[in-house]
Amino acid sequence: MTARITALDTFDIRFPTSRELDGSDAMNPDPDYSAAYVVVRTDAADGLEGHGFTFTIGRGNEVQVAAINALREHVLGREVAALCADPGTLNRDLIGDSQLRWLGPEKGVMHMAIGAVVNAVWDLAAKRAGKPLWAFLADAEPDWLVSQVDFRYLTDALTPAEAEELLRAGRRGRTEREALLRERGYPAYTTSPGWLGYSDEKLSRLARQALADGFTQIKLKVGADLEDDIRRCRVARQVIGPDIRMAVDANQRWSVAEAIEWTKALAEFDPYWIEEPTSPDDVLGHAAVRRAVAPVKVATGEHVQNRIVFKQLLQAGAIDVLQLDSARVGGVNENLAILLLAAKFGVPVCPHAGGVGLCELVQHLSMFDYLALSATTENRVIEYVDHLHEHFVTPVALARGHYLAPTAPGFSAQMHPRSLDTYRYPDGVFWAADALTEGR
Amino acid sequence: MTARITALDTFDIRFPTSRELDGSDAMNPDPDYSAAYVVVRTDAADGLEGHGFTFTIGRGNEVQVAAINALREHVLGREVAALCADPGTLNRDLIGDSQLRWLGPEKGVMHMAIGAVVNAVWDLAAKRAGKPLWAFLADAEPDWLVSQVDFRYLTDALTPAEAEELLRAGRRGRTEREALLRERGYPAYTTSPGWLGYSDEKLSRLARQALADGFTQIKLKVGADLEDDIRRCRVARQVIGPDIRMAVDANQRWSVAEAIEWTKALAEFDPYWIEEPTSPDDVLGHAAVRRAVAPVKVATGEHVQNRIVFKQLLQAGAIDVLQLDSARVGGVNENLAILLLAAKFGVPVCPHAGGVGLCELVQHLSMFDYLALSATTENRVIEYVDHLHEHFVTPVALARGHYLAPTAPGFSAQMHPRSLDTYRYPDGVFWAADALTEGR
Repeated sequence: MTARITALDTFDIRFPTSRELDGSDAMNPDPDYSAAYVVVRTDAADGLEGHGFTFTIGRGNEVQVAAINALREHVLGREVAALCADPGTLNRDLIGDSQLRWLGPEKGVMHMAIGAVVNAVWDLAAKRAGKPLWAFLADAEPDWLVSQVDFRYLTDALTPAEAEELLRAGRRGRTEREALLRERGYPAYTTSPGWLGYSDEKLSRLARQALADGFTQIKLKVGADLEDDIRRCRVARQVIGPDIRMAVDANQRWSVAEAIEWTKALAEFDPYWIEEPTSPDDVLGHAAVRRAVAPVKVATGEHVQNRIVFKQLLQAGAIDVLQLDSARVGGVNENLAILLLAAKFGVPVCPHAGGVGLCELVQHLSMFDYLALSATTENRVIEYVDHLHEHFVTPVALARGHYLAPTAPGFSAQMHPRSLDTYRYPDGVFWAADALTEGR
Repeated sequence: MTARITALDTFDIRFPTSRELDGSDAMNPDPDYSAAYVVVRTDAADGLEGHGFTFTIGRGNEVQVAAINALREHVLGREVAALCADPGTLNRDLIGDSQLRWLGPEKGVMHMAIGAVVNAVWDLAAKRAGKPLWAFLADAEPDWLVSQVDFRYLTDALTPAEAEELLRAGRRGRTEREALLRERGYPAYTTSPGWLGYSDEKLSRLARQALADGFTQIKLKVGADLEDDIRRCRVARQVIGPDIRMAVDANQRWSVAEAIEWTKALAEFDPYWIEEPTSPDDVLGHAAVRRAVAPVKVATGEHVQNRIVFKQLLQAGAIDVLQLDSARVGGVNENLAILLLAAKFGVPVCPHAGGVGLCELVQHLSMFDYLALSATTENRVIEYVDHLHEHFVTPVALARGHYLAPTAPGFSAQMHPRSLDTYRYPDGVFWAADALTEGR
């Protein structure tokens, strides 16, 4: 009998991170790191499941779950083998749903829902192939990878033929690079010292720890108060010395003029990049900031809604560093498009991570990029934040400031059943107990 | 006692329009016009309610309702008088919710939900003032109107001082214009003849009817098949003659190169504008299309997600015609920003309408624009589509191709209780009967 998809189950998972000020920045003072989590089940004899999720920061996670539920009918009943052989067809069907498309198109809640479902299918496909996703992708033929990309609205910047040529060129030397990857891993930088809610003492301590852990770049949140930022940058630079890179991140706090002024005021501390200086929608604004603050680099991407905005950021020369996110755009397929665009324009990709499971996911994309496309880790680092990894069955492994290459089959997306039971909102063990405590 | 907001009730309302091919275009072959509808109730003695909604085209309307529900806690308990005296505070609180913001920011499902709630508050405020919204806005002082605009991310294109100056200049001659408006109304154009699903015979008949009804512009959907489009444009042009404007609308179907090629292939029929030639996110793409297809004008806006993208469309010289939508962005407050940006750049606003109730809402914004900002109707028309008006308590009134100025207090957003009861999904009278017929 032909195995088919039999269920798409969703879970509203929330962690009470706001109580520790973990993850606090200039725009997000009190996040409760959350996941709209999805499990795709089949009736295949192998018993394998596909797991995926979208990251949110608390309120509204139920809206995200509702959006994933709205996609269920597109997934149920599909043949497992055909689906895993060509996730791009599902990706196009989800993006192309002519009624759901009105709610975007290709942005916000509906698009993140598509990403969660598509990523769950890639998890299943890689598990069925018995490979970690990075290897599953890097082993694929260039023409198949190109077939997985939706080139609609991209061809003025990148054609399928150009994409295939980039992939053919990119795979040269792959064997040597894979040996290096398996030995050393992929470079990381850490944001853990730099949350706005932390004291100077905690910032110093965590910055020292970052050096001890082998990181060569840290990141500080800025943008709430300039005097505070100057003091915190000075503290951090004193701890790390002149040779460690220090990025700063404004989380969209500023207008174009404010971004330029504030970045220049921090220039004496030699920031490596200014991240999210203004609205993620403002391509022309980022271009203006970049012209004004060089040699400080401009980075953005964690809130960039889709490949069309990334295309323009590259066309306009608006960014030095492209920070794709594994779970905001339409899943692996759209991230393939974004990696290809970055390669075409020669802009390094330094992915956004942190939150819930974003490190687990995005490492696979960077490792694929290294093996099969960019062919280098120069000026490339994956963000690392030491939060909530314990909830994952195959959590990331860091050593000497590098992400070690995952060996387990799949996309590293699977959470422990106990974590789902405990943090399911509002009826999981933690939240039910919390409601009792609050007298609700 | 101080009157407060006591309830925010939501309704999932869907009309089975797909069964008649009303509203069919190149990207939306089978829309079921729908509304995520909201009623704001108070304990004030006047018994007035605020009504608002977001328009969708069917599936996913329940996600939109969930998003509105996620905003409820921001609204309940607010003082009615304070809220109606300053809807901008609520607008900023909703956009600024630090957790919900992650689901956008300011785009897609969450942003449309904010628009529905904010518009309901404006409906209530205008009702309490005893004025139709257009008059409520046009009677307001420039500095108060400026206080209602969120200038975050706008100041590189428009400052509060510039906005106030535009409003002060715009109100000159307002008395004479208001007399004209009350006498003649505001010019409209009609899309009713041009849906893709209609036969040539129906197209001809409806185009003739448009002339008889006094319209001086019609619009045809294009983009599915070039030979069909050439034939349909020829049929329409033969009916309407050379002096009536004929716009064409591709509903985002094309890449940049396709948009240029296709528009040029239709140029012999003298299209007035090409609408949505490509992705609404592609500012640079629209600019490239505009450079290539002049003198055909480029129009977009019904899917433009917020003021930041409109800002860039204007900065980049990407559009000749700005088509704001009453219910996609963050409500009246953000549309004030968009009208001010259009005035600053001297680009005419020809709003998107149709769907469910979009004509009812947007007429107020254009009439305000005429009285208090642009001061002209030259090259300005509001879209008109003759669908579903019968469900509204104070439906639009058209005469001689003009929208007549509404006289009832409020935003014209209120639907008949019987319509809500009949088309509530899935348990309203129509849908319950339909499910029985389908044997579900």
